[in-house]
Amino acid sequence: MPKAKSTESKPKAEKDESVVFVGSKPLMSYITACVTQLNRNPDELVIKARGRAISRAVDVAEVLRNRFMTDLKVSSIEISTEQVTTAEGNTANVSAMEITLVKTK
Amino acid sequence: MPKAKSTESKPKAEKDESVVFVGSKPLMSYITACVTQLNRNPDELVIKARGRAISRAVDVAEVLRNRFMTDLKVSSIEISTEQVTTAEGNTANVSAMEITLVKTK
Repeated sequence: MPKAKSTESKPKAEKDESVVFVGSKPLMSYITACVTQLNRNPDELVIKARGRAISRAVDVAEVLRNRFMTDLKVSSIEISTEQVTTAEGNTANVSAMEITLVKTK
Repeated sequence: MPKAKSTESKPKAEKDESVVFVGSKPLMSYITACVTQLNRNPDELVIKARGRAISRAVDVAEVLRNRFMTDLKVSSIEISTEQVTTAEGNTANVSAMEITLVKTK
């Protein structure tokens, strides 16, 4: 059986797109992840979050932009609603956000 | 002395702009506030929030748009960093967000 993880592809995202998913870890974990992604692919970075992590995603984008990589700018922000299945099998709606950052030079 | 509250003006906001500040109250309080504002000024509504309330502001925008006023669309979302003074007199940075909603018809 092939290793599913290494060959896994994300059809939704473009190939050149770097994505960082923000959850409930400390802020600096995501800053580090963003800097790493931007070193590999300096053109574009998408920060995604759902539910309560949305506030943290905004913090990540702002701290990154103001302190670590001042040549970044926000190119677009999108909000949406996603359906998730809870552990009990119910479906719930949760808000989601995507912040796209690009380098200005 | 004149009643300050009734003559109070907000120089930052345009005159036609309706603003709802989202804080830590239940979601439906803000939905109601948004519907009220949109009945008075149907053209544009700005939802503002800071810090952890940012996630709730996204919920307000999404629930309003999907369930209550389906003719609304997001015209722009902006994020920024604001300096606030804590009760101890220190300054702290806090992320802020503004979601602008407009009617499509």
